[in-house]
Amino acid sequence: MSGRTDAAALRAFSVSLCRAAGLSADDAALLTDSIVFAECRGVTSHGLLRLPQYIARLRSGATARNVPMPFTMECGGTARLDAQNGLGQLAGRKAADKAEELAGKYGVSFVAVANSNHFGTGAWYAIPAARRGFFAFNLSSAASAMAPHGAAQPLLGTDPLGLALPRGEGKAPLALDMALSTVARGKIRYAALSGTPIPETWGLDAHGAPTTDASAVLNGGTLLPAGGAKGSGLAIFIELLCAVLTGSGALGGTGLLSDLSRPAGTGHIFGCVDIKRFLPLETFERLCEESLSRITALAPAQPGGEILLPGEPEERRAAESAANGVPVAAALRETLNALAEELGCAERL
Amino acid sequence: MSGRTDAAALRAFSVSLCRAAGLSADDAALLTDSIVFAECRGVTSHGLLRLPQYIARLRSGATARNVPMPFTMECGGTARLDAQNGLGQLAGRKAADKAEELAGKYGVSFVAVANSNHFGTGAWYAIPAARRGFFAFNLSSAASAMAPHGAAQPLLGTDPLGLALPRGEGKAPLALDMALSTVARGKIRYAALSGTPIPETWGLDAHGAPTTDASAVLNGGTLLPAGGAKGSGLAIFIELLCAVLTGSGALGGTGLLSDLSRPAGTGHIFGCVDIKRFLPLETFERLCEESLSRITALAPAQPGGEILLPGEPEERRAAESAANGVPVAAALRETLNALAEELGCAERL
Repeated sequence: MSGRTDAAALRAFSVSLCRAAGLSADDAALLTDSIVFAECRGVTSHGLLRLPQYIARLRSGATARNVPMPFTMECGGTARLDAQNGLGQLAGRKAADKAEELAGKYGVSFVAVANSNHFGTGAWYAIPAARRGFFAFNLSSAASAMAPHGAAQPLLGTDPLGLALPRGEGKAPLALDMALSTVARGKIRYAALSGTPIPETWGLDAHGAPTTDASAVLNGGTLLPAGGAKGSGLAIFIELLCAVLTGSGALGGTGLLSDLSRPAGTGHIFGCVDIKRFLPLETFERLCEESLSRITALAPAQPGGEILLPGEPEERRAAESAANGVPVAAALRETLNALAEELGCAERL
Repeated sequence: MSGRTDAAALRAFSVSLCRAAGLSADDAALLTDSIVFAECRGVTSHGLLRLPQYIARLRSGATARNVPMPFTMECGGTARLDAQNGLGQLAGRKAADKAEELAGKYGVSFVAVANSNHFGTGAWYAIPAARRGFFAFNLSSAASAMAPHGAAQPLLGTDPLGLALPRGEGKAPLALDMALSTVARGKIRYAALSGTPIPETWGLDAHGAPTTDASAVLNGGTLLPAGGAKGSGLAIFIELLCAVLTGSGALGGTGLLSDLSRPAGTGHIFGCVDIKRFLPLETFERLCEESLSRITALAPAQPGGEILLPGEPEERRAAESAANGVPVAAALRETLNALAEELGCAERL
């Protein structure tokens, strides 16, 4: 059952399940595009793993289907979209397109999305805008998972931050797509399974004490912000912008599956800057390449090591997925096939 | 010689030295305001310590005096200022004011500053804008000091990032003013002096290897980014925006004193978002306080510890400085008094 699957087959499978969960053809294709984009890039945390979660929320009504998502404000470079508790990817795509349109007119934009849900991988929004000549950024609030600096308990989300800039010479954009926790929970789960000690900067135990025991973090403990007070401070700002400024809610949202009885109340920010206002795009790209090539030419810290720029590991994985198919773990394949059967879909992975 | 000095006396002293170094009365007052603001807040790394460095650059001509600093582009929410190698604080104040003006018109702004110098503490720009109802942000390139993730040698600047949001109930704005290195070089110097081992995340030795020996970092080694690949990725984006997009230069600028024969080529970005476009300012402030009070009400990680929000330690120190005077270390006092004598100024600290 394990092995590699062609991206087109993953796409057809995902669309079929999304349609069975009540999404329109367009919405199913858009959600699928975000999921398969992430999976092909090796960002498995935002790939097919999420499909059962999104579908569970759609079927329970915790996430709404086929809502119009109107812009409730548009003025100069700013706008606000009410996602009406629909899928984050649908709201996000609409808001990211608006951010690009407004930056085309005003040079810079800042678009708030209220009452949304998990929006997937930020690179899915930022990279296409960068390809069209924009500096693109996005932020999202997220479920409570991380202790603020100095606290023993979680409250902040891991709050993803997505950035992209165009590169010249036909290269894929420079893309940073990061959460503000020191590491993803998945890495701590893996350490717990393999019995490997973890650095004390990864999390606290249930008593709020630093620990090298991964299972102590998972059993009632909390993740810690990257860079201590720095990541904590950034996450506080991201939460206040995404949850409060958008009008979505407050700190400490719920997870995708932790409460199917109420909306997630997630908020996002999307923005773009039109590079050609400042200098010709070709000049910008050429000067960036000069600077970036100085980075990659540095002596590596590990003998024989390679210095990779933000987004390069994902681009390599995407090329590899395109050439050889996308690896899908056996357990995930089984989960997805069982869900397909439950939904009455004929497709299997 | 050690002890506390009234902020007004620090101000008069600094203005006198700046005037003797050839600055106009207005420019001397503005540079002094940034320096004394930082010193009063306990941000000594951007306080009086910098005055001899700024003055050395002014006297050598490495930083220009009395240049007009024109806006070379203004279009929608974007603008570009050419600092003409003048002081970063003068360029920064002008650009931050423009960012606020444009955000008032277009809701959001993004102002680039080219050909500038060290701009001091970012909170000095962001906090006043937040008091007037804006989300304010600023970024700067900086001298090469930090190894990109995976590299053994420094190239990235520590690249400061300043953010501020207004708070209700007469409270000072929430303010994050951070560099992207794990810690400031000053902390590593202190560890070297006191013989204390440092965490391996602070820096690399001259061979690019992680070390707990502070002096090994200082002697030909390099600082490391906060949060590993995350801080490194953010610094790469900040450098490309501040150095390249502004038209200032490239990665890896020079330090304040490392080369008095040429311009620093520092660039900055200033931006604002007008909060009241999204919701009434009072509503935003009230909802922020609700969220922030949930953070400070969490159980502390240290028994009896307190959870401080971004900017709170600095605000407390500023209140303490206002009440009891600003502590100035004896060695710094001597350096400054010697400089005053050299410049023919009558004032002494």
